[in-house]
Amino acid sequence: MTSVGIIGGSGYTGGELLRILLNHPNVEIKAVTSRELSGEPVYRAHPHLRKVTNLKFIEPNIEKISSLCDIVFLALPHGKSAIIAKKFLEVGIRVIDLSADFRLKNKEDYPKWYGWEHPCPELLEKAVYGLPEFHREEIRNAKLVANPGCISTASILSITPVIKAGIVENERIVLDVKIGSSGAGISVSKATHHPEHSNIVRAYKPIMHRHTAEIEQEVSLKTGEKIKVALTPHAIDMVRGILVTGHLFLKREVSLQEVWKAYREAYQNEPFVRIVREHKGLHRLPNPINTIGSNFCDVGFEIDPHVNRIVTFGAIDNLIKGAAGQAVQNLNIMIGVDERTALGFAGVRPV
Amino acid sequence: MTSVGIIGGSGYTGGELLRILLNHPNVEIKAVTSRELSGEPVYRAHPHLRKVTNLKFIEPNIEKISSLCDIVFLALPHGKSAIIAKKFLEVGIRVIDLSADFRLKNKEDYPKWYGWEHPCPELLEKAVYGLPEFHREEIRNAKLVANPGCISTASILSITPVIKAGIVENERIVLDVKIGSSGAGISVSKATHHPEHSNIVRAYKPIMHRHTAEIEQEVSLKTGEKIKVALTPHAIDMVRGILVTGHLFLKREVSLQEVWKAYREAYQNEPFVRIVREHKGLHRLPNPINTIGSNFCDVGFEIDPHVNRIVTFGAIDNLIKGAAGQAVQNLNIMIGVDERTALGFAGVRPV
Amino acid sequence: MTSVGIIGGSGYTGGELLRILLNHPNVEIKAVTSRELSGEPVYRAHPHLRKVTNLKFIEPNIEKISSLCDIVFLALPHGKSAIIAKKFLEVGIRVIDLSADFRLKNKEDYPKWYGWEHPCPELLEKAVYGLPEFHREEIRNAKLVANPGCISTASILSITPVIKAGIVENERIVLDVKIGSSGAGISVSKATHHPEHSNIVRAYKPIMHRHTAEIEQEVSLKTGEKIKVALTPHAIDMVRGILVTGHLFLKREVSLQEVWKAYREAYQNEPFVRIVREHKGLHRLPNPINTIGSNFCDVGFEIDPHVNRIVTFGAIDNLIKGAAGQAVQNLNIMIGVDERTALGFAGVRPV
Amino acid sequence: MTSVGIIGGSGYTGGELLRILLNHPNVEIKAVTSRELSGEPVYRAHPHLRKVTNLKFIEPNIEKISSLCDIVFLALPHGKSAIIAKKFLEVGIRVIDLSADFRLKNKEDYPKWYGWEHPCPELLEKAVYGLPEFHREEIRNAKLVANPGCISTASILSITPVIKAGIVENERIVLDVKIGSSGAGISVSKATHHPEHSNIVRAYKPIMHRHTAEIEQEVSLKTGEKIKVALTPHAIDMVRGILVTGHLFLKREVSLQEVWKAYREAYQNEPFVRIVREHKGLHRLPNPINTIGSNFCDVGFEIDPHVNRIVTFGAIDNLIKGAAGQAVQNLNIMIGVDERTALGFAGVRPV
Repeated sequence: MTSVGIIGGSGYTGGELLRILLNHPNVEIKAVTSRELSGEPVYRAHPHLRKVTNLKFIEPNIEKISSLCDIVFLALPHGKSAIIAKKFLEVGIRVIDLSADFRLKNKEDYPKWYGWEHPCPELLEKAVYGLPEFHREEIRNAKLVANPGCISTASILSITPVIKAGIVENERIVLDVKIGSSGAGISVSKATHHPEHSNIVRAYKPIMHRHTAEIEQEVSLKTGEKIKVALTPHAIDMVRGILVTGHLFLKREVSLQEVWKAYREAYQNEPFVRIVREHKGLHRLPNPINTIGSNFCDVGFEIDPHVNRIVTFGAIDNLIKGAAGQAVQNLNIMIGVDERTALGFAGVRPV
Repeated sequence: MTSVGIIGGSGYTGGELLRILLNHPNVEIKAVTSRELSGEPVYRAHPHLRKVTNLKFIEPNIEKISSLCDIVFLALPHGKSAIIAKKFLEVGIRVIDLSADFRLKNKEDYPKWYGWEHPCPELLEKAVYGLPEFHREEIRNAKLVANPGCISTASILSITPVIKAGIVENERIVLDVKIGSSGAGISVSKATHHPEHSNIVRAYKPIMHRHTAEIEQEVSLKTGEKIKVALTPHAIDMVRGILVTGHLFLKREVSLQEVWKAYREAYQNEPFVRIVREHKGLHRLPNPINTIGSNFCDVGFEIDPHVNRIVTFGAIDNLIKGAAGQAVQNLNIMIGVDERTALGFAGVRPV
Repeated sequence: MTSVGIIGGSGYTGGELLRILLNHPNVEIKAVTSRELSGEPVYRAHPHLRKVTNLKFIEPNIEKISSLCDIVFLALPHGKSAIIAKKFLEVGIRVIDLSADFRLKNKEDYPKWYGWEHPCPELLEKAVYGLPEFHREEIRNAKLVANPGCISTASILSITPVIKAGIVENERIVLDVKIGSSGAGISVSKATHHPEHSNIVRAYKPIMHRHTAEIEQEVSLKTGEKIKVALTPHAIDMVRGILVTGHLFLKREVSLQEVWKAYREAYQNEPFVRIVREHKGLHRLPNPINTIGSNFCDVGFEIDPHVNRIVTFGAIDNLIKGAAGQAVQNLNIMIGVDERTALGFAGVRPV
Repeated sequence: MTSVGIIGGSGYTGGELLRILLNHPNVEIKAVTSRELSGEPVYRAHPHLRKVTNLKFIEPNIEKISSLCDIVFLALPHGKSAIIAKKFLEVGIRVIDLSADFRLKNKEDYPKWYGWEHPCPELLEKAVYGLPEFHREEIRNAKLVANPGCISTASILSITPVIKAGIVENERIVLDVKIGSSGAGISVSKATHHPEHSNIVRAYKPIMHRHTAEIEQEVSLKTGEKIKVALTPHAIDMVRGILVTGHLFLKREVSLQEVWKAYREAYQNEPFVRIVREHKGLHRLPNPINTIGSNFCDVGFEIDPHVNRIVTFGAIDNLIKGAAGQAVQNLNIMIGVDERTALGFAGVRPV
């Protein structure tokens, strides 16, 4: 039995971590923190967990939590996680960090993409980028896992096979993203005010989105190809889910079989990646709705002879494969149990 | 291990039965039928189940299915289920019928509320109304369980405690219902055409809704009070979920404690009913969003001194506690396992 | 040409006032105020008005505005309007107040329903309740018009005919309300955070809602019957629109003709009330979607023989007939032009 | 006064034509047809027009309509319009065709993109592509106007300035489209079933979408540059509105001023194109929500130094600037009145 703590448990990611871990046969939740709700039952923040658990929030006391837990999940704002992670690591606690604070290998990338100097750059090289499909072996013994960004997960998994196959131009990769409002977290803002977020399509960071950096880093690392990504995310009227539509230009003619093979080789043994590409029907390509509530990433593609393009698709539930589910997948690898433990739920559909 | 079949497996209820039963440790799905999709993998109809199961749809051949299964779930249209149920019963197969065909005890109620004569009225008295909170003991040995209607489940569970307490007028019970589009099933119609069902509130059966009959039957049976229900359902822009708001007029002054006690006595030992009534906060009363993906029914109330009224609330996921989840709850009772088996998921929130 | 000012022009009601008045042939907008956006073009707050007007927000300087305008619209928070209104009245400016500050005749009702003492109770009797269907003649020469609440408008117009007809019990009038998020205004809150307001049904003020007072006041005044209203509003996943479902219990048997007659007599000459009651079809009863963008109030009814009930329906666009449109309708009466001026738009459907 | 007819008046485009034309001071609607609803009032199909008009649907008798009308709008399915248009033209009636039947100049494009031979190819050269911003002079005396497609309108207007400026690669133009369900028309289908169209992002025609042809034709014609377009439309949970996000790769470095100038020169005198590009704020770039109910097309752009890309945005209400509004704009030009007549409404927001 592994003892775990959730640091920052009152937000949406914290809620999903709780929900998943409460059903985990090899894990006991020893601590879940919230400054604001300390002493209150977790169902105060997560009303769907009423009668599911009697857990209460506690103060985020690192010393106390260190004495209780083997592994901690950090569900904290970007930029606040690094220092906390360091403290846990110093006392031998393994850390799965859901912020961006350890995703980038190059310390110069933090000022460039995030606007701040990294407070503990020496940890960057020790951190493992927690995308199991790419780094399973390193995760196994990692002390510090940097859980990938949500847009990044769907992007990386959907485009890597065609880049690795060497068939597309590496500098003109368009990733057009559509994302639900839960990605913005639990804090209110004018952007997520219901009358302002209903029936909309709003490009909220049309250029220089932060996830660009980790996508380029990881795909380049995996494929040996230096790539550049043109990423534009759009907020739409949806709570959960991400679809990343990739538009990549072919360097040469390709056959359907060739592309199929690239995806199949990449993912045929992966428990949480599904290749979705049927000849017809409403569900012939990835659509986030078919992943909601599950840890699956659906990937698919189409070849466009008109403009020598491959269109790729990656769909996930941003709070699960894009956050809490992937974190538990990492945990499973770290503690040596079946990677699918507690992640077997198939999703809720329609919803 | 109990062998089960799902007759009519391509609709939304069929999909939820599959999803839940695939995780059931005591059950093996031996047959799932669809005339239209016979031979196809179930993920053709239920894309979220891709890579979760290799099951294929088969033809609804009663003889064949009878040889494979101990219990069958019938997820068939109202009026078509009775004859099929009868055939299964004749060969000793236990039946959980998700249609309305066996919910009413009085055969005269079928022409009155459904517009047709019942084809096998002799079975009505043998059928058990499958609301575990009311009929747990009879369900245990039942051959034929009539799974309750979705609106009925939320209505009955939310209003019965105050009626049993004898504090409200029995003939002026208003049930104002708000329901999501999945309740209309998988068949397309003008009413569920997306442009006609978005941003709406549409009273679709303002009087004489069919669930009236089973609500009156069951509440009267349980409480010994003859009641009359004024039910008006509204379609709103939501896929899953039902909220039943009850407006009941008090016969005398009541204390908060008295009403609390009525609910607590009714449900404190029930695994799937939660009393939700806080002093403040966004989640102080039932809201279907907090039940989505789970088998919970959330009930709550407020006392209105201005007009001597009790307002009651009942919220469920219409496809789970209102259909497939409750059917599995019934199955669990019938096969003698923990009632919560395979129903432990806490719901997905926010969504 | 009448010169008007809009005090508090950056919210949703201010935006609708602008949109409507910009097309008004007898009106010139001389001032539109916003403390926060003073000096900025109005399209900064109302992006749909870009290229429609060059108006800019100004500071809410009462003296200056008084020198420019004949009539002012106050679109200010409840409790803040009264003092401002008084100042305008003192210098001879006519006021249309969209807050609740002058809707109630009885000064004791303010502490009871709003929780504060009225700062200028002497004005209450001078204020005219601006529901043209009830008070057209008084509005004509009014100095101070109290524009009705949104829920109140749909409630009063839909139930008054049957109460006036003397056929229903006056103390058991249930008004079950479904309302869109724009009714909560432009200020952000956890309740209107998109992930918390999507796919929901949430009773947000199950008892003692403030609009109860003005509904009871106005219906009683109009019909001579003392009534009591059991009002429960529900927030649903919709931006605009209100449906009020009334459940009223009959004192005696009534014929369809009798009820039809009651509605027809009340509204046959009203330009903005439509009786919607067809035998069949998706649109046979009021649905707010059919009023969005227009000043119409759709009313309808159904007689329920099972429980001796009349179900009434009232549907409006909460920002138009429930606020800005009704205010302009009042203005038209006050300045002696056709009541429909600038209000001729038919609504936008589907949307 | 111009007499007009609407052929095919029961769909969404027909409803918008009616709504707009009923407020047109220079137009009288003499005929509106529907086979199915002949003899019924138009509010049977368009409930928002109740009490707005007493018009009734008539049979689509060409002879009769020709004797009544000067100009007809054809709101008929693609492939059915051409023959009807020809008949009206033969008797001297001017035609504004809202289908795709006359949009393409080259008759070979019909088998290629639409799958059928054009029945009257001799008319193709006589037809004028009804995008006023491009063909105002030709529209003036046109006998046959081919009203542009909705995706095409937003695409062409948003990308042409940068292509004309010669700064982007012409063969790698990605147009990633997000569109509401009303674009699919009034006919029901599984794709637009509410439970299947809620909370989704579904690429429904990832390659070879038909509008590609008219976009390439018109942009090439206007700019003298041969272009190729990589178009992928996505259905999202929205009823009205289109956003076209263009991703175009720069051939050389450009300054912000240079791109601004390209847009300004193209549209500064256009009544219905707005350039939306602010430094900050929620509304700094086009979002279809700000055009709903109006005839505006909002265009904007962003320069991405990371990948040498321009991101362009075009947003419209698909039923207005993308269909009925643009058709009336064409009518206004054809009859010599101010182009903005009956199109002055600013849109309804929030909604």
